Amino acid sequence: MAPQTRIGLAGLAVMGQNLALNIAEKGFHISVYNRTTSKVDETVERAKEEGNLPLYGFYDPESFVLSIQKPRVIIILVKAGRPVDETIKTLSAFMEKGDCIIDGGNEWYENTERREKEMAERGFLYLGMGVSGGEEGARNGPSLMPGGSFEAFKNIEDIVLKVSAQVPDSGPCVTYIGTGGSGNFVKMVHNGIEYGDMQLISEAYDVLKNVGKLSNDELKEVFTEWNKGELLSFLVEITADIFGIKDDKADGYLVDKVLDKTGMKGTGKWTVQQAADLSVAAPTIASSLDSRFLSGLKDERVQASKVFKSGGIDESLSNQSVDKKKLIDDVRQALYASKICSYAQGMNLLRAKSVEKGWDLKLGELARIWKGGCIIRAIFLDRIKQAYDRNAELANLLVDPEFAKEMIERQAAWRRVVCLAVNAGISTPGMSSSLAYFDSYRRESLPANLVQAQRDYFGAHTYERTDMPGAFHTEWFKLAKQSKV
Amino acid sequence: MAPQTRIGLAGLAVMGQNLALNIAEKGFHISVYNRTTSKVDETVERAKEEGNLPLYGFYDPESFVLSIQKPRVIIILVKAGRPVDETIKTLSAFMEKGDCIIDGGNEWYENTERREKEMAERGFLYLGMGVSGGEEGARNGPSLMPGGSFEAFKNIEDIVLKVSAQVPDSGPCVTYIGTGGSGNFVKMVHNGIEYGDMQLISEAYDVLKNVGKLSNDELKEVFTEWNKGELLSFLVEITADIFGIKDDKADGYLVDKVLDKTGMKGTGKWTVQQAADLSVAAPTIASSLDSRFLSGLKDERVQASKVFKSGGIDESLSNQSVDKKKLIDDVRQALYASKICSYAQGMNLLRAKSVEKGWDLKLGELARIWKGGCIIRAIFLDRIKQAYDRNAELANLLVDPEFAKEMIERQAAWRRVVCLAVNAGISTPGMSSSLAYFDSYRRESLPANLVQAQRDYFGAHTYERTDMPGAFHTEWFKLAKQSKV
Repeated sequence: MAPQTRIGLAGLAVMGQNLALNIAEKGFHISVYNRTTSKVDETVERAKEEGNLPLYGFYDPESFVLSIQKPRVIIILVKAGRPVDETIKTLSAFMEKGDCIIDGGNEWYENTERREKEMAERGFLYLGMGVSGGEEGARNGPSLMPGGSFEAFKNIEDIVLKVSAQVPDSGPCVTYIGTGGSGNFVKMVHNGIEYGDMQLISEAYDVLKNVGKLSNDELKEVFTEWNKGELLSFLVEITADIFGIKDDKADGYLVDKVLDKTGMKGTGKWTVQQAADLSVAAPTIASSLDSRFLSGLKDERVQASKVFKSGGIDESLSNQSVDKKKLIDDVRQALYASKICSYAQGMNLLRAKSVEKGWDLKLGELARIWKGGCIIRAIFLDRIKQAYDRNAELANLLVDPEFAKEMIERQAAWRRVVCLAVNAGISTPGMSSSLAYFDSYRRESLPANLVQAQRDYFGAHTYERTDMPGAFHTEWFKLAKQSKV
Repeated sequence: MAPQTRIGLAGLAVMGQNLALNIAEKGFHISVYNRTTSKVDETVERAKEEGNLPLYGFYDPESFVLSIQKPRVIIILVKAGRPVDETIKTLSAFMEKGDCIIDGGNEWYENTERREKEMAERGFLYLGMGVSGGEEGARNGPSLMPGGSFEAFKNIEDIVLKVSAQVPDSGPCVTYIGTGGSGNFVKMVHNGIEYGDMQLISEAYDVLKNVGKLSNDELKEVFTEWNKGELLSFLVEITADIFGIKDDKADGYLVDKVLDKTGMKGTGKWTVQQAADLSVAAPTIASSLDSRFLSGLKDERVQASKVFKSGGIDESLSNQSVDKKKLIDDVRQALYASKICSYAQGMNLLRAKSVEKGWDLKLGELARIWKGGCIIRAIFLDRIKQAYDRNAELANLLVDPEFAKEMIERQAAWRRVVCLAVNAGISTPGMSSSLAYFDSYRRESLPANLVQAQRDYFGAHTYERTDMPGAFHTEWFKLAKQSKV
């Protein structure tokens, strides 16, 4: 019989295995359980191989739960939705008042809030903890976003502080996010921002490859170079790696053989829907979702490409050789400026939800815990943290003095790249919607006056005036008729 | 005691009053009821004034319901949500098996499906009927989108055929949409398309005014001219009217005094959220929603406009005089091409939902009933009907031979306008996201291969290949490390 362990983890797919091993490696004795027992053996085996880590496997839920010291803390890493409810049902049968379950999956935040209530009624504690970093992050240090019962967080604080990614001068990539489903919601927006980053990088690749005619070797060079500057980030780093990988099944590079169809898991969709719900414009993130949808219509695109050869496109652009060095520098600036817009959207979405739910999210602190471990980790996030340190009430990242300066410096290059792509018939939905967001946000007067006039014309929705307070309605139709006679 | 009437209408705000008068004018004796009795008197008064129409007012729900011949048909026009449930509760207390309630509001389609079930259990029939055309349409002929019980539709078919807008060579603007909440859903997407049209028109206005420096008189002339051609539509017509209206409270034109803040009622938001739910790209409609959100941030925009004077923008564009005639013609083409993309998105959203719900929506028929009465009525809709007549299974309006030809002819002008706006620092989110949609849809190969490679790199999400079937996973990280040593 193993000694009482400090914590338990149920659900031993790769993420679960890696997180369990990570916890054990930090010296916390951990019990692990999985319905399919082979996974238990697999994990125990890995624990041996990776240095006789204090990890103990169990084949039934009861002995698993009873092996953990009280108050028990059990992390579950199973598919979101029904499997989470089933796992909770199975485990809670053997839990006692004061015990806690932590869901580490990408769960819809309202499910977590429902479960936290149900558990509380039974005397249990509950946390919804976003875990980012993929398999590698889970094993070596993820970014953790725990939300829900603060008491539960206190019970695992010592563990998550050690298990999470450690960033020099910035600390462990974990913080108590807030009550309810805030941990899941923050992870959801993190994923939405991740969608945006990946889309923008793919557009940079598209322009450099199809307008700049860069080879994969040149692309690898460019992204490697970019990863030394303001764009230093995990995604830019792996992008550079990707361009260097040769195909193992045929000649050439693997990236050229990958089908241009992008899958998705739902968090990007939720982010876009929540933005609409909260009246927050998030066009960069939305464009990345739309691009994934359109990527899925491969057969339709092949057909459409035959219908629309190229008529109307400035062929010269795709044929004449452009100034590569200049183009590369322009694209870098366009990518960076677009990225700022994307993060501004994500952060404002988080703030809007925080206000609605009373979560009191600390945006700068969120940027801090994203600096390491997670997929969007980047030097850039430190700039965002500083922006909110300067002004926690910052209305939009764009107007932070530092970012504003960078936007002004980069917008000329940004506009060149978007126009170049437009004229070459290459779509850059992320970069151009980011630019539209920037140009809309920085405009004192938008043509929305016409839209509101139209709404009052046909729907009597009333309008405000620029020169006096109040709501006004005009009989536009009558006046128009009069002016006609 | 009045003779038994043919139909009843409850909820006498302007829309309700107008629809009731419209029905009475067509010779159908109608009973009307409103909780606030003054509205009843108001309506009865109007019925007298407008030609002693056969309209009978009632001050209590019982006598109202009992005054209608069986099987009773009662249209309710009250605020969506709870008020609808309350009105149903009040009226159904006096109804008998076989009677029918028709909700004419902009209701969320799932509420209608819930109510149809609840009513059916009590032996009542139920319809959710989208009504478009605003106050004027309700009075003189709206576009009607009834969905739900077919039996109920049959009970009012003779009425809706006469009450709806009549379009020469195309018939009454009404058809049985389908079962469940299909009527509400189709109306919702109609409104989403309406958002897109209004946004695109406002962008055309923005470019012509701020780049072309057109005066309101010139703008009125341009839109009046446009309304004689391919853009002939209600929204272009009222836009021309708007530019001609002088301010009644100060000098100048009223449109220049209208505050650039746009309100909204929720159907646009639902459309965008449903598109995400159904994996349908709808960037034009989404950009119109985002533009409304950003329009609401007036104070933030005023602040931001000070931070970002104009640095990096091609001043020459906003200062030098452009070729007005050429610009006007380019903008017309950009507006039309963008409009095609917007409708393609809306129609594909309808098809996706129809497949999900088994509604068997007839897209061409929907275009037909939108030709008159509703806010998006336009000659353009006849082209859409023809496209689906040519091929009911058309994957996307863009690849219909006729529309494809028009897109090819217009894309050069479209690209010029978008770039002109980009360089002038004027955002055209609707036109540029439409162009990105077009350029993505017509591309055989998108850079999504990189995104999928990234997903496989950090998440082991696997990828497909262009040259062989199957799902593949590569240890990108390992290979990259090897290539580094």
